[in-house]
Amino acid sequence: MNIRMILRVLGLILLIFSGLLLLPLAAALWFREPLRPLLVPVVLSGAVGFLLSRVPVKTGVLFARDGFVIVALGWVLFSLLGALPYYLSRSLPGFIDCLFEAASGLTTTGSTVLTDFEGMPRGVMFWRLFSHWIGGMGVLVFLMAVLPMSGSYSMHIFRAEVPGPTKGKLVPKARQTARVLYLIYIGLTALMTLFLLLGGMSFYDALLHAFATAGTGGFSTNPGSIGGFQSGYIETVCTVFMLLFGVNFNLYFLILIGRWKDALKNEELHVFIGLVVGSAVFLALSLRSVFGGFFPALHQSFFNVATIMSTTGFGTVDFTHWPEYCKWLLVLLMFCGGCAGSTSGGMKLSRLMILSKTIRVEIRQMTRPRSVQRVEMDGRRVENSTIRAAAVFSALYMSLLLTAAFLLSFDGFDIATCFTASLSCLSNVGPGMTELIGPAGSFAVFSERSKLIMTLAMLMGRLELYPILILFSPKTWKK
Amino acid sequence: MNIRMILRVLGLILLIFSGLLLLPLAAALWFREPLRPLLVPVVLSGAVGFLLSRVPVKTGVLFARDGFVIVALGWVLFSLLGALPYYLSRSLPGFIDCLFEAASGLTTTGSTVLTDFEGMPRGVMFWRLFSHWIGGMGVLVFLMAVLPMSGSYSMHIFRAEVPGPTKGKLVPKARQTARVLYLIYIGLTALMTLFLLLGGMSFYDALLHAFATAGTGGFSTNPGSIGGFQSGYIETVCTVFMLLFGVNFNLYFLILIGRWKDALKNEELHVFIGLVVGSAVFLALSLRSVFGGFFPALHQSFFNVATIMSTTGFGTVDFTHWPEYCKWLLVLLMFCGGCAGSTSGGMKLSRLMILSKTIRVEIRQMTRPRSVQRVEMDGRRVENSTIRAAAVFSALYMSLLLTAAFLLSFDGFDIATCFTASLSCLSNVGPGMTELIGPAGSFAVFSERSKLIMTLAMLMGRLELYPILILFSPKTWKK
Repeated sequence: MNIRMILRVLGLILLIFSGLLLLPLAAALWFREPLRPLLVPVVLSGAVGFLLSRVPVKTGVLFARDGFVIVALGWVLFSLLGALPYYLSRSLPGFIDCLFEAASGLTTTGSTVLTDFEGMPRGVMFWRLFSHWIGGMGVLVFLMAVLPMSGSYSMHIFRAEVPGPTKGKLVPKARQTARVLYLIYIGLTALMTLFLLLGGMSFYDALLHAFATAGTGGFSTNPGSIGGFQSGYIETVCTVFMLLFGVNFNLYFLILIGRWKDALKNEELHVFIGLVVGSAVFLALSLRSVFGGFFPALHQSFFNVATIMSTTGFGTVDFTHWPEYCKWLLVLLMFCGGCAGSTSGGMKLSRLMILSKTIRVEIRQMTRPRSVQRVEMDGRRVENSTIRAAAVFSALYMSLLLTAAFLLSFDGFDIATCFTASLSCLSNVGPGMTELIGPAGSFAVFSERSKLIMTLAMLMGRLELYPILILFSPKTWKK
Repeated sequence: MNIRMILRVLGLILLIFSGLLLLPLAAALWFREPLRPLLVPVVLSGAVGFLLSRVPVKTGVLFARDGFVIVALGWVLFSLLGALPYYLSRSLPGFIDCLFEAASGLTTTGSTVLTDFEGMPRGVMFWRLFSHWIGGMGVLVFLMAVLPMSGSYSMHIFRAEVPGPTKGKLVPKARQTARVLYLIYIGLTALMTLFLLLGGMSFYDALLHAFATAGTGGFSTNPGSIGGFQSGYIETVCTVFMLLFGVNFNLYFLILIGRWKDALKNEELHVFIGLVVGSAVFLALSLRSVFGGFFPALHQSFFNVATIMSTTGFGTVDFTHWPEYCKWLLVLLMFCGGCAGSTSGGMKLSRLMILSKTIRVEIRQMTRPRSVQRVEMDGRRVENSTIRAAAVFSALYMSLLLTAAFLLSFDGFDIATCFTASLSCLSNVGPGMTELIGPAGSFAVFSERSKLIMTLAMLMGRLELYPILILFSPKTWKK
């Protein structure tokens, strides 16, 4: 383990974090609000970052383990520093609540403990929704985009922060890949801001909701979330962009360089579209009477399928009052999440596709032991190590899900609340599937112990489980 | 596919099934009850079995696929025939209810739709609890024990019916293995009957509850289950034997041939004992106030941990009224089940152990990519194919669990009821974790469609998922 180098990289990302925090600080300045809640974290992360970035290093070599530790420690630090604006502005009761909100923002979960929306200064609210945008693409990816680093170890970091079972590089160098990703990200965010402005939203609301959508986060400036704006047009814009941000960014890159056909042939995209359309039509047929007709129901169904599958978590209606089978469908979609290489959470469709193809192959292999069966994806053979990793990931996902649900149950809430709260945090969705923690509810009801557990679950979900486990494993710290 | 040979083997097992049904028929004769409900299935399966066993075969070779089809078709036929005694005695309202009860009995689940215990003739009740005993060890294993068959294909059948991630043969020949298993099974059943008789139970009740325990089933002659006998001694005997039947039978064989030490060194046994004792003590500490002291609570905790982990499903108290975290603990134990090679259900501890060891190895491999890590169990290396199969099994288990829960939700029951009903059926436990379907509830509340789904789930759970999937896969039936 190269502790000095780890500290140095942590210093660099804290400097970047400090720089990113200047944007909400500027918003506070613009709105003539007290600057302290945002200035303190800016100065703190800037100063600590500066000192750490000066740590003298003997060698620049980073090991695989170091990459995981940097990512995990970095995200824990972001969450702690990101909690300060809420804490210093007294927008939330205790520090644990602030930490939960910060982690929920950065991990793009969007579960909230905020109940008093009026009491939060607009600069802090800017930070709250902007944190989705930062967390969506990742601070370390940003670091790679702006700093020249030797290729060998930057891929370790890239691997740990970008979700999905396989990590394809768009272009040979990690730095260029990171830059292309960020450019697409910024471009889509700007486009969405424009569309929201056209719907009559203020620039502040439009920009912030574009941030929240781009990261597939789910926080809103409005206590009624997107539903609070009472505009079918805005709901539609959100639906479309939630889905766009749930798609693998590599496909946008392919489109940009003119390889349309390759992008449209992507198997995961087909499954994503199929699941979205299929689920939305199913829900619309089931909810005709609730919304007074098929088409109003279809509008709401598309929005809510998009919000759950992209793991954004915006709300228009309280789906916890829908029929049980509609709720179960949404629970199933929570497991899935969106495409690998997008900003969405969940287990990722491509991982589930690899698993379901493997199950089919296993069955064929059982019935025809002498035949040779292979798992294929996009016309290419899936490596055995990828299959094993996907299967082990799903087993780990399930065991963490059930463990977290068990630990939450000590607060005395029912099985469905604990199960869907745990699932929602681990999949970075936002709302749970019972009234208490649904679109109209709040996670404020949980104890501080439970909020810490959910904070960990959200971080695990965002970083694809392993970095946080590695950070807390005693073996990591042994010589 | 060797259709003729499949029919012939099905004929043989129907003959055996008919022979096994003679025992409840004798009970009906003894109690001077109408014989028709039991005579019809005896004659029917005997006649069909005789005809099928005469099908001329061209070759005795069975393929792997044929083994799965035989096991799956066999169990579907047993369930259909086993439903007749309930149907003909009008003990249950419709045929679907009878089918559910029969499958629940044979798969040793023990979920019941019976509400009127008085209305059921004693011969039919004998069949109800005896079906657990038949299903626990398996009819095809019995076939192998009594009939000489060439080794090549009998192992295919053996593999499909005996649970666990790896199938060790006790002795070189499948036939001898099957015989040893049945002798241990009969011996333990007789011993338990004796212990129950000593507790003042009637011979009828003692024998039937020994059957139900041996198969880790969970049906009872008493509407209050084991709690209805109001005897701490009987509860203790049941606790001990439920645990004994949750242990890998191979260990008893090792003990019988004097290899005590090898048996006691078994890793899965250690985990089983650790989980039982740990969970029971945890529950006892949590439930002190409910049962008025640590030791009464410990007695109830041991019973209920044993009934859930062995997937028997006997009841003494309604644990759905326990604190939420106690219920969650039981839910987690429902996933586990007992040891491989026992009559218990669930995912099996050894499979979960392989998975958790693999997760640890994956993490170590990630942090030290150049080191070579192996998964070991009982001092031996676990093959990669076994690891992959265990991981794929768990993914399949989870997806079937969630799919079944989704399908059950169309009846309008809440998330917890559908989730734990699905889990209970797939793990062959018996009760669910909400009041409606808990130890004091009944599965009669579900619609006929849901009962059919649960019937399939129980069969899948008992046969370790694949045979039923293979039976219903169109590919199986293609030339």
